[in-house]
This record gives sequence, C-alpha cells and structure tokens, in this order.
Amino acid sequence: MKTYLDCIPCFFRQALEAATLAGSTPRAKKKVLDHLAKRFPDYPMSTPPPEMGRIIYQLVARLTGKKDPYWEAKQKSNGLALRILPKLRAKVRASKDPLLTAVKLSIAGNIIDYGVKNTLNVQKELQRILSEEEKTIRREKKRLFDYPRFKERVKRAKTILILGDNAGEVVFDRLLIEEIHTLGKKRILYAVKEKPIINDATREDAFTCGLDRVSEVISSGSDAPGTVRHRCSKEFLKIIPKVDMVLSKGQGNFEALDWLKRPVFFLFMAKCPVVTREVGCDIGDIILLYRPAQSLRKKRKRGK
Amino acid sequence: MKTYLDCIPCFFRQALEAATLAGSTPRAKKKVLDHLAKRFPDYPMSTPPPEMGRIIYQLVARLTGKKDPYWEAKQKSNGLALRILPKLRAKVRASKDPLLTAVKLSIAGNIIDYGVKNTLNVQKELQRILSEEEKTIRREKKRLFDYPRFKERVKRAKTILILGDNAGEVVFDRLLIEEIHTLGKKRILYAVKEKPIINDATREDAFTCGLDRVSEVISSGSDAPGTVRHRCSKEFLKIIPKVDMVLSKGQGNFEALDWLKRPVFFLFMAKCPVVTREVGCDIGDIILLYRPAQSLRKKRKRGK
Repeated sequence: MKTYLDCIPCFFRQALEAATLAGSTPRAKKKVLDHLAKRFPDYPMSTPPPEMGRIIYQLVARLTGKKDPYWEAKQKSNGLALRILPKLRAKVRASKDPLLTAVKLSIAGNIIDYGVKNTLNVQKELQRILSEEEKTIRREKKRLFDYPRFKERVKRAKTILILGDNAGEVVFDRLLIEEIHTLGKKRILYAVKEKPIINDATREDAFTCGLDRVSEVISSGSDAPGTVRHRCSKEFLKIIPKVDMVLSKGQGNFEALDWLKRPVFFLFMAKCPVVTREVGCDIGDIILLYRPAQSLRKKRKRGK
Repeated sequence: MKTYLDCIPCFFRQALEAATLAGSTPRAKKKVLDHLAKRFPDYPMSTPPPEMGRIIYQLVARLTGKKDPYWEAKQKSNGLALRILPKLRAKVRASKDPLLTAVKLSIAGNIIDYGVKNTLNVQKELQRILSEEEKTIRREKKRLFDYPRFKERVKRAKTILILGDNAGEVVFDRLLIEEIHTLGKKRILYAVKEKPIINDATREDAFTCGLDRVSEVISSGSDAPGTVRHRCSKEFLKIIPKVDMVLSKGQGNFEALDWLKRPVFFLFMAKCPVVTREVGCDIGDIILLYRPAQSLRKKRKRGK
C-alpha cells in the first residue's frame, strides 16, 4: 500500500504521541514536529506508510534521547497478556471450533495496545470483539473473514511464516500457533522486528512470551513498523519462497506487503480510515483476508 | 487560547480537507501540505489557532486558485437552515422558556456544517441536542451552561454584540435575537467575517439569512476563522468598549478572544480535544460559558 495524503496529518499525530510517551518537553516535541515537517515533503508517497513510521520513531529517539520510548508499555502488554493466557487457552479449548476462536483472539490481541490501561478493559474488549465479530463474519463471510479457506490452507501447509506485530499480541499468536500444531506436523516460523520500533514485538518480546516454545523465532531484519521489503535482511528474504503460506499480523504489515509473492492471509483489526478504504471495511472490523500469490503477478502484468 | 502542539496534526488535516473541497488534484493537495510544512515551524505558538486557520485557507486559495472553496456548501447550509426556520420558531414560541430553547438552538446550529448532508440529518441532530443537552445542564449547571446568569445579563444589557460563526448557523442566531428583543428595547450588533474563510458567515450570508431584519450587521474586519484581535478593523475595535456584553458564537471565536475586555458569554459546541481540555468538558458538550470582564485584568496582574 502506498502512502496516502490522509496519512500525513496522522504522521504528525504519531510523532507527537511518541514524543509525549518518550517524556519529551514541549520544546523537544515541537522540535520533533518541525523536523518531520522538513522531512516529509521529500518522502516518496509510493513507499508504504510504515517506512515513514520508521523515520518518525528514529527522529523521536534521536531528538529525545530515548531509544525505546515504548519499552515499559511493551513489558506491561506482555505481562498483561501472559496473565490472561491460561484463561484464554481454556476458552479456546472449550469452544466448538478451537482454531476459529484462536484466530479471532489472535486478531483481537491487536487491541492490547500501549493505550490500554488495565486487565479489566482488555477482558471487556476481548468479550466485545468475540461477540461482535460474529456479525462481521455473517456480513462479509467470504471476502473479509475467509475462515473456511484459512482452515483448509493451514491444514495443507507444511511451513508457515507468521509476521508478528505488537508486544502483548504475540501471546495471542502463541495460542493460534498451538491450535495450528493440533492440525498436524508443521514448521512454523515467527518473524519479529530487528530493533524496537513503536510497540512492535522484537526477539526479546517473543522469548518473554514463550513463542520459542511453539515456533522458530526469527527476525525479519526490518526496523520499520511493518515488513517493508528493503528493510528486510537477505536471510529473511531467502526464507520467504520456501514457505507454503504467510500469516501477516497487524495493519503495519498489511500496509507493507505489496511485494510479497507468497499466498498470504492478513489478520488484523482495521484501525485507520485509509486502510478501511483500501480493504472496503469499517473501523474496528476484524479482518482475515486472503491474497493469493498470483494476484500480484497479474496486477504487475496488467500494470505493464 | 494559545496554539497547542495537538493543533499541528489538525492543521494538516484541515488543510487537506479544504484542498479536497476546493477540488484540488492530489498533486495540488500535496503542494498545500508541503507549503504548510514550510510555514508552521516559524508560526508563533502563542497566537490563537484561528490565525493558523487563516494561513491555511489562504494557502489553499492561492495554490488551488479557488478563493472560496466553501461557497456552495455555505449556500446549502443557509438554504437548509432557512427552510427549517419556521418550524424552529414555532418550537421556540411553544416552549416553556422560549429564550432557553432559542439559546440551545443557537448553540446547536453549530452542527449545520459543510459536512451535513440533508435536512433529515440536521433535524435528527437538533432533536438529539435539544434532549441531550438537558443532561449537560443538569451536570454542570453553574459553570458550563450558565443560563440563569445569561438571562439576567441579557435582560439588563442595552447594547449586545454577537460575534457570528458559520453560515447556516446565523439563522439560528436570528431566532435567538428575536427572543432577546422580546425582553425589551435593545441595540444588537451582529458581527461577521470580512472575507470568506472556511464556512464562516460573511455579510452576504447574514443578509441572505435575514439577520439585517433583527440586528445591525457589521464586519469584524477579521479574515481569520475567529475574531483574532490584530485581524480586526479599527472601527470594530472601537465598538467593543461601547457594548454592555458580548455573545461569542463557535469554537473559533472562543479560541481567539483572550484579548476581549468585555463581559462575554461563549456559546458553542465543544468539537476538539484541545478546547475540551481548556474548558473542562467533553466532545459534543453544549457550552454557555460566562467570562466576566474583570477576570482577564486579574490574570494580567497575576502574570506581571
């Protein structure tokens, strides 16, 4: 996905939020915004928004002297998710279709964000999403929440690459991976970000949350809040053609993955108007969207 | 009110909206945002936000070649409000306290915005506000909706200056002025903007909506979306010490009027987080806030 003009006001909002979280003085915050104003006119709009996310958070880190302003928030998210894991696991196991519940929870895990204040809120929110999204499934069964295809493809796949998203959320992905393992012997790779960027999960978060017990934790090499191709490591890019399917978590990865030539399921909660327009959904919708490997090739051919 | 850092992302959003409404190409829109990025680092944050509003809409006008991108929207708002005027007037006259209903409607008129699509929506919204705002009155009777004081001061005043806000909304102010006239002989001045700026009312709108039948329509001289002091004409500034009280309509005027040394009632619907923080209210609240002439002098003394 390219960067839209609507993303620009949002970049400033994000920069201000990150600078605030980094405990900046008003003066330092203004400096961050002024620097962003200098940078974005030259920013190529054809690149995906997470590339600008990377610029913004590097700017904040440099100007505020805080390399990882979201560190504490991430620890909190991880702790919170780990605390409710046994309860969620019981919920999954007790449900009619454990894989479906695990998919829903993995997407819903996206709400464990740095903004969320306490366990109570998260549990309430999860309840809301688990019931609400039944509507979503009914409404656009085939296209926006393509669970039958997901189940069938996951069953068939031998090697699955999961592109992780946020700290805390990784715990919910762990539940999903546990369920995928019940479908047969599979190799599951779980890719995290190379360096701290916003509240995205890094190796540290993945290990804290026990992802290494259910998958091979790797790094995409990317230090952008999304798997932007030219930010990925060569090693990571070499892995991609070898996997049968990709599960892409979160909006940032959805925005960044135009280049991906593997069959992919995007699992995310729609949070911004630009993405909802791109997908054709509403804010807050729970998305399980399939994109075959071919569609991109076709697109390219049509483009030529 | 000074400009807060939170206003900056919003400036970009406003610029994009205005450029879109002006029918700009994506290229022209990007140009508007790039120009804004060049301008705002030097913008003094001590000035009220409507001053930046002025810069933004001048930029859009210059770069898109459309001097008054909101012209059509304003005509629509005026027409819409004039069509429902007889119904609203009947509502006011039939109510227990016609002045109170007129005050509520005058504030609620703030929702007739360029975004509103049809009569049905507006009537629904008005109904919502008329009933909802009873809650607001109950909740913070004294401070945020100070109707008893308003009624008493309006009764006593001989000369009242009303600072108008948006096109369409002026029709609702006309109803309020009609009710004020029933309280005794008064001179009422109705000030509009000097030039088109966003959907703010100009002389043309005031005359279209019949404000000249119930008041003396004057211009503040300001071409900012608020009565920013140094944008006002000398003639207008000379009038101010001669009036007994000021009724300030809309958020833009609230943001701009730190300098005013007359007793003022602010009538507006709280629409932005910065203003709600400043006032201590919630988004969507109906505000009738009194500020005596003295408070500013005290503030200044304390400041010295």
